[in-house]
Amino acid sequence: MRILGIDPGLRTLGWGVIESRGSKLSHVANGLCKSDGDDLGERLLSLYNQVKEVIDAYQPDQAAIEQTFVNKDGAGTLKLGQARGVALLTLAQAGLPVGEYAPNRVKKTVVGVGHAEKEQVLHMVKLQLPGCEPKGPDASDALAIAICHAYYGAVQTMRIKEVGA
Amino acid sequence: MRILGIDPGLRTLGWGVIESRGSKLSHVANGLCKSDGDDLGERLLSLYNQVKEVIDAYQPDQAAIEQTFVNKDGAGTLKLGQARGVALLTLAQAGLPVGEYAPNRVKKTVVGVGHAEKEQVLHMVKLQLPGCEPKGPDASDALAIAICHAYYGAVQTMRIKEVGA
Repeated sequence: MRILGIDPGLRTLGWGVIESRGSKLSHVANGLCKSDGDDLGERLLSLYNQVKEVIDAYQPDQAAIEQTFVNKDGAGTLKLGQARGVALLTLAQAGLPVGEYAPNRVKKTVVGVGHAEKEQVLHMVKLQLPGCEPKGPDASDALAIAICHAYYGAVQTMRIKEVGA
Repeated sequence: MRILGIDPGLRTLGWGVIESRGSKLSHVANGLCKSDGDDLGERLLSLYNQVKEVIDAYQPDQAAIEQTFVNKDGAGTLKLGQARGVALLTLAQAGLPVGEYAPNRVKKTVVGVGHAEKEQVLHMVKLQLPGCEPKGPDASDALAIAICHAYYGAVQTMRIKEVGA
């Protein structure tokens, strides 16, 4: 199963594609979509086009996205929401099932603790995906989200098998 | 000039199209896009498709959207942001110039006061667009946003003429 992980953001959106076969994970690709444009609409359109290109290029079977951490910074939440909405739309247009994971759950799955630093996430991502060089912290986070989905996807599949057995 | 006004929302997105010729305004159409779908991605996709249909059907020259009021309800801001992002993307894909107006500015322009009730907005929208029957409060608000844009657009055009004269 090929999984696309997305760490949404208006300025920079991180993405990472991994391949999951049973308990074996491998790195396919990762990168950053940087929005450009004079106004918000153009920036969202540039994100949309870039995410679409990633989907077209790597043909994932499923996707995973970070659940947005809602804080007191309303303006920040709004910006992030707008970028996240465009990312979710692009995934829905491609017909991809999407898993949503809270940041703490992603860190706990990949690093073992819920309040890990970015460096720890990067370290564990590189350890679990040999040969992978994330193109930045947002790409590393996106790969961690994909790994989290692979794990929970696997758990789900196992459960279905247990029920079927 | 034909203007599409949009009042964004995840559950219901209001829209209204008006025609503006000099100081004369007339109503073209208005309605509501209600999102359906099992998950957030599908709901955003359903909004996207409906807004696209409105643009295709009424071919506006410009668009106007409400500036989102950021409050302490982070989860609400995030939902609204996601819907707003999809609306802005759709307008950008259609190549429409977009004006953004704060709710208070819309009310002040259409009703005369910044803290008007929905009923007052509806009343003034119907007065300024004879024969118009808004299909709900969100459609009435969307028409008010379009009227606001028509006014500010007209002011801008007049200024350009003054400079040119």
